[in-house]
Amino acid sequence: MAVASREVHLIERPEGLPVATQFQIVETTIDDPAEGEFLIRNQYMSVDPAMRPRLSNGQQPLHKPLGAGTIGVVTASRHSAFAEGDVVQHGLGFREYVVSDGRGVSRLDAAGFPPTLYMHVLGPTGFTAWGGMLITGELKDGENVFVSAAAGAVGSVAAQIARIKGCYVIGSAGSSEKCEWLENELSIDVAINYKEGVLRKNLKAAATQGIDVYFENVGGEHLDAALPRMNVGGRIPVCGMISAYNNFGARSTGVTTLSNMVYQRITMRGFVVTDFEEKREKFLDDMRGWVADGQMKYRETVFEGIEQAADALIGLFTGENIGKALVKLD
Amino acid sequence: MAVASREVHLIERPEGLPVATQFQIVETTIDDPAEGEFLIRNQYMSVDPAMRPRLSNGQQPLHKPLGAGTIGVVTASRHSAFAEGDVVQHGLGFREYVVSDGRGVSRLDAAGFPPTLYMHVLGPTGFTAWGGMLITGELKDGENVFVSAAAGAVGSVAAQIARIKGCYVIGSAGSSEKCEWLENELSIDVAINYKEGVLRKNLKAAATQGIDVYFENVGGEHLDAALPRMNVGGRIPVCGMISAYNNFGARSTGVTTLSNMVYQRITMRGFVVTDFEEKREKFLDDMRGWVADGQMKYRETVFEGIEQAADALIGLFTGENIGKALVKLD
Repeated sequence: MAVASREVHLIERPEGLPVATQFQIVETTIDDPAEGEFLIRNQYMSVDPAMRPRLSNGQQPLHKPLGAGTIGVVTASRHSAFAEGDVVQHGLGFREYVVSDGRGVSRLDAAGFPPTLYMHVLGPTGFTAWGGMLITGELKDGENVFVSAAAGAVGSVAAQIARIKGCYVIGSAGSSEKCEWLENELSIDVAINYKEGVLRKNLKAAATQGIDVYFENVGGEHLDAALPRMNVGGRIPVCGMISAYNNFGARSTGVTTLSNMVYQRITMRGFVVTDFEEKREKFLDDMRGWVADGQMKYRETVFEGIEQAADALIGLFTGENIGKALVKLD
Repeated sequence: MAVASREVHLIERPEGLPVATQFQIVETTIDDPAEGEFLIRNQYMSVDPAMRPRLSNGQQPLHKPLGAGTIGVVTASRHSAFAEGDVVQHGLGFREYVVSDGRGVSRLDAAGFPPTLYMHVLGPTGFTAWGGMLITGELKDGENVFVSAAAGAVGSVAAQIARIKGCYVIGSAGSSEKCEWLENELSIDVAINYKEGVLRKNLKAAATQGIDVYFENVGGEHLDAALPRMNVGGRIPVCGMISAYNNFGARSTGVTTLSNMVYQRITMRGFVVTDFEEKREKFLDDMRGWVADGQMKYRETVFEGIEQAADALIGLFTGENIGKALVKLD
């Protein structure tokens, strides 16, 4: 018995900030699973800044569902390894239903945690923050840390890891609401609203002991402000440069302070979460412990219904989301 | 019997390009060495881009001889470890004579090479190029390499190391004479005159296989052009950013292409030659072999007389020197 399903397609490649008309909700019909297949009803879809470059560089095909992390439940199965009722995680993207033969789909054993946590703190964004901070950034206990976009999904985890490691933590965010959340809920030392005053001056005032690790999510003006504050031997793990993604050629505003790379012998390194795959168990051990004992806090910005998917994605770049942005399907 | 000696002092800190009036030749009298001391008559002084930041940041004291690598000969000694006639190397700077108790002075056993080579290919600039390329840059045989300021003291060695390792080597320089030297004498694959045409386009045209290692001496426009050409896992050892040194706050022109740090998972790392100290013997083995068998070529731009010292230093920033700039004393 086939089911009706809606999908979100990219129909036109954005050059600047994506707009809603570049996306389209397409109604399809999903056939029953054949032998060796199963049907997934999706429940949550993840929206993530890393999706943005793929919209322009061709990695995201036109007229196909947007690729994204997704959690769903198996509603019918003719596959030996997946049973009706299994909660599964996959990257098959922005659609209400999907039939799978199991490739790229894993059964989610949430082990006492809400399943959506496996889309952020216990999932790719948490793993990104953990690996970027502890492996690429080589964070040591008690260092001085700056995290840009610290109220975002990755940034908020990165900032808290540093706090848990006894570091002095400065975070930047784009609203007073976010800054209050960072200081009052996440207990980081100083939150800077980069939309108020001069970021360079505010960062200089906050970084009284310099910066040993700058966890870079933004680029442009943020990097320009951070480089002169770096200590000798400082590390800049580069997770993203969201300020550049919506510009032609992904160009940021000009960074003029890179001579500090030499003066302070700084290491700057771009990374992706797959770099850390062999450390996944260690990550899960750490993060489950921190979530369970309340040290690691999180917040979800949940958009209800597949009609909101494009707005949720656009909201990443207009600064409207706090914590992890998710789209919940009915 | 005291000797008359001239010294070059910094008398005013430069804010932009240094000018001759910020330096002064001062006549002094050097007393005979006391017990445990010896007198050095200096023969060659090294001028180096790394001297420039120290003029502004306070590391170089005013009204004192400019600190710089120097080679001289011992002309009188009451020190047990140094004898008249010994050739010595030290950092006591821009002066004709100096009395030393031996601290920071080493006897130079040139071992069949002209002593001045220990001020460039076999000395600090060669060691900088070797360590930056092979240790910080983790160069592998046959990779694709770009070296900026490739006709300079460090750049010309870095480019040749890459060529010796079987790499495809692109170099930039600021005159057709330098480019001809790079292609015809040093046998690198492509030399780009960055003062002609658009560097970004010329580099793109030359880097048909992308860039695995960018040996960075210049910064600004050069880095902006190189980043989009970097291959996945590329390395950017940052030796210097000479384009920035004469600007207020050592700021370069804006670099807008840093989002490639993430896309291509690039590592950029500033270094100084002292990072490599434990590998000095390996460096000397390599480099003496390459110089002896003619694989490593070099060129000296020699300024005659201490009166030329300031001009020699300024010439580093106006692009007038090829290879290693030295001041020869009478």
